[in-house]
Amino acid sequence: MGLLEKTIHKIKKPNAEMYAAAKERLRNQARPAGSLGILEDVGARLAGIFGTLDVKLKNKVIVTCAGDHGICEEGVSLFPSEVTPQMVYNFVNGGASINVLARHAGAKVMVADIGVAYNFGPELPIFHKKVRKGTSNFAKGPAMSRDEAIQSIEAGIEIVEELVKKEPVHLLGTGDMGIGNTTPSTAIIAVYSGLPVSQLTGRGTGLDDEGLKKKIGAVEKGLSVNKPDAADPVGVLSKVGGFEIGGLAGLVIGAAAYGIPVVCDGFISTAGALIACELAPEARKYLFASHNSVEAGHRFMLKHLELEPLLDLKFRLGEGTGAALAMELMDAATRILIEIRTFEEVAIQDAQK
Amino acid sequence: MGLLEKTIHKIKKPNAEMYAAAKERLRNQARPAGSLGILEDVGARLAGIFGTLDVKLKNKVIVTCAGDHGICEEGVSLFPSEVTPQMVYNFVNGGASINVLARHAGAKVMVADIGVAYNFGPELPIFHKKVRKGTSNFAKGPAMSRDEAIQSIEAGIEIVEELVKKEPVHLLGTGDMGIGNTTPSTAIIAVYSGLPVSQLTGRGTGLDDEGLKKKIGAVEKGLSVNKPDAADPVGVLSKVGGFEIGGLAGLVIGAAAYGIPVVCDGFISTAGALIACELAPEARKYLFASHNSVEAGHRFMLKHLELEPLLDLKFRLGEGTGAALAMELMDAATRILIEIRTFEEVAIQDAQK
Repeated sequence: MGLLEKTIHKIKKPNAEMYAAAKERLRNQARPAGSLGILEDVGARLAGIFGTLDVKLKNKVIVTCAGDHGICEEGVSLFPSEVTPQMVYNFVNGGASINVLARHAGAKVMVADIGVAYNFGPELPIFHKKVRKGTSNFAKGPAMSRDEAIQSIEAGIEIVEELVKKEPVHLLGTGDMGIGNTTPSTAIIAVYSGLPVSQLTGRGTGLDDEGLKKKIGAVEKGLSVNKPDAADPVGVLSKVGGFEIGGLAGLVIGAAAYGIPVVCDGFISTAGALIACELAPEARKYLFASHNSVEAGHRFMLKHLELEPLLDLKFRLGEGTGAALAMELMDAATRILIEIRTFEEVAIQDAQK
Repeated sequence: MGLLEKTIHKIKKPNAEMYAAAKERLRNQARPAGSLGILEDVGARLAGIFGTLDVKLKNKVIVTCAGDHGICEEGVSLFPSEVTPQMVYNFVNGGASINVLARHAGAKVMVADIGVAYNFGPELPIFHKKVRKGTSNFAKGPAMSRDEAIQSIEAGIEIVEELVKKEPVHLLGTGDMGIGNTTPSTAIIAVYSGLPVSQLTGRGTGLDDEGLKKKIGAVEKGLSVNKPDAADPVGVLSKVGGFEIGGLAGLVIGAAAYGIPVVCDGFISTAGALIACELAPEARKYLFASHNSVEAGHRFMLKHLELEPLLDLKFRLGEGTGAALAMELMDAATRILIEIRTFEEVAIQDAQK
């Protein structure tokens, strides 16, 4: 049994009794029932995951997975693939958007090279998990081999293992960097939604109408050339996916196996999460959706995953930026659960005066 | 000239050059233009308000205004008016929802009695600004006199003055407490939207169908008995408003006059903000909408104010809970503006290596 299969077998159901106890406490708080909306369920789910009402999301880590894409040959992105390694350096240097928002959220950022088309020096403080220097052009054949697809998912699992070996992780965020990676993500949701590609395709980092047409054409070609089968998620990843998308799937499976809640960023991270949950449906119990991306296909992914996003700020950046902001709302949810007094607690306090 | 009029005259336009400079910096950051959505404009607006790109929202204060409502006689709320003072004590004791979320946001909470139907001891650490012990039943005549309406708005202004006399305030949040107060708020948006009351009326803290019918009837009666005129905001407040709603309007006007950005909570706080902006249109430049309330009329208020809310978490609690969570996003917006490196800054850094 390989690492992927072993890890999937490790995933346990969250504690249903603690989830129910959390719901009960929320109902008894001195405020109208249900009045704190989505954050009530977030708090209860976290209680189920950690097996306590007093959840503390102390150590937060965002892993930003990077990869390059052969499909860029089809003219699907405004930016050249060279930008992917440049942004990896920008992340390492701390001046990118994700660094800023992670600092704000009190989270660490770690970058993972799963398939960037550039040789990083081994001294660069990132996870070195390169499967290959960029995928093949999936408009002409599979993006990667089946073995490479599994390797990319296992890279994500290994990263979780390496993180938890160092110190406990209480909340994992996922993020992406990879020029062209909205295109494979669009192909993935096309497979799982069955909807027309044109309805699912967005402008990525800012395509014009002609670019959008090219992108739709590339995805349609990729689907017709490769015929991915929704029932075979590793096959979907290998045929029309990306290395960082595999890594992002592995992060979700790894987090679930280690009992760590995982909050996925936008379109690309959710594509990885979708592959993860197709492979390991129980992983969904550990998964939270951070935000609604502007990218057209994203809401269909969230619908498929039956997840309600916490934010809708019209972000379309990736890197983990939405995940970082959602982490603060998840912190708020843990406080709501334990700190807001119940009617009984208020009465006891009044009696003590 | 009274305090209200004097304060309105004090409101200055934010710095348009600094707003433009902020937009320019955001455009030049090493990421796709516009990719951080709504938070980009929040950051730029804050730059305009403070006249600097390096905004620090250090001292955050949430003022929760409380009042009672004669309209409760019509059976418009599930809870009795006695809950209003009980919740004031709960706020002062630190165990209520707003205390928890304000701690999370690093904000102080101050409670203001603008018109609670209860005598608080003078030693209670709240703003003692009671206009009267609850409004009159506006289904039978005006909720308050015109003088009382002005007094309630000036109470909000005085609170801002007292706060800034003690220490600088960099962000003011508004919140409400008052059994029955979604009813006057519904009446106010009915006046300004011209839409049928039935379309604007929500279930408040949890009315059933019969309760909802009573509430709609009470608002309709109030409008037909009092005939509020949209062109006279003080008249609208006096005829179908509430004391805490006046206080909330005064907070917005006061904040704008002192150059302080103000983030309003949900339905009731936005009703106050709406009255404020009708009285002083320039105040809108200092106003931010925290979230989309579940309450039906709220989105029409935001539409009227042309404000885009930062959160949509299905909250329907009030107290300032949405404002508290939005404060963290506003903090994030200030960091985005100043900390994310521009292409030029990235190049300079690379050259220095």
